[in-house]
Amino acid sequence: MQLNLNAAFSALADPTRRAILSRLAKGEATVMELAEPFEMTQPAISQHLKVLEDAGLVTRRVEGTRRPRRLAKAGIEAMDQWLAMLQKTLARNYDRLDQVLADMEETTEKTKKEIRRGEKR
Amino acid sequence: MQLNLNAAFSALADPTRRAILSRLAKGEATVMELAEPFEMTQPAISQHLKVLEDAGLVTRRVEGTRRPRRLAKAGIEAMDQWLAMLQKTLARNYDRLDQVLADMEETTEKTKKEIRRGEKR
Repeated sequence: MQLNLNAAFSALADPTRRAILSRLAKGEATVMELAEPFEMTQPAISQHLKVLEDAGLVTRRVEGTRRPRRLAKAGIEAMDQWLAMLQKTLARNYDRLDQVLADMEETTEKTKKEIRRGEKR
Repeated sequence: MQLNLNAAFSALADPTRRAILSRLAKGEATVMELAEPFEMTQPAISQHLKVLEDAGLVTRRVEGTRRPRRLAKAGIEAMDQWLAMLQKTLARNYDRLDQVLADMEETTEKTKKEIRRGEKR
């Protein structure tokens, strides 16, 4: 899993590969079908697809002589889960900070009241 | 933004950098504070932090002679949004497939009924 996450995040560091994933999210496509809109040669597309397949983000299906590629949901979800974990920890940390600030405010208010009471005497 | 996403995803392709981000999600820390649990030299940690800062995932604060690092929420959210967009497109595509399958099933049922009606005659 660790290794897969490395390869998955690395694969996403390229704008063409991100665009290929966006295209495949809409439905499966062959190398030929991908080469046209991207104005790239088929070998270039194949190379990007190989990186995406090795990272577990894309799978291929056999249909006669066609090899349509589709998005691998599990690979995308693995990255999503890692980011979600990070944001959850961050949110918990913010909540704790909020509590600290609220406690500080409360203490300040108490001190102010005590000072006012002292002044009145 | 495009450039930032490249650097951000690339930065996450390293397990040590992901671990540093997980640690910083819990609260800010200096290079010295990070070096200890990771059992790495301070220059090694500094180098990882530079990659994370350049990618917009970590920021530094000046506090006297200390330079505590913290997570940059916006950078994390940018990646999260890209993945969310991908999953939304994928879900929409699945919904459409479900509709196609439902339509096919309906047609099949109709055909079956017509065949049965034909047999009865």
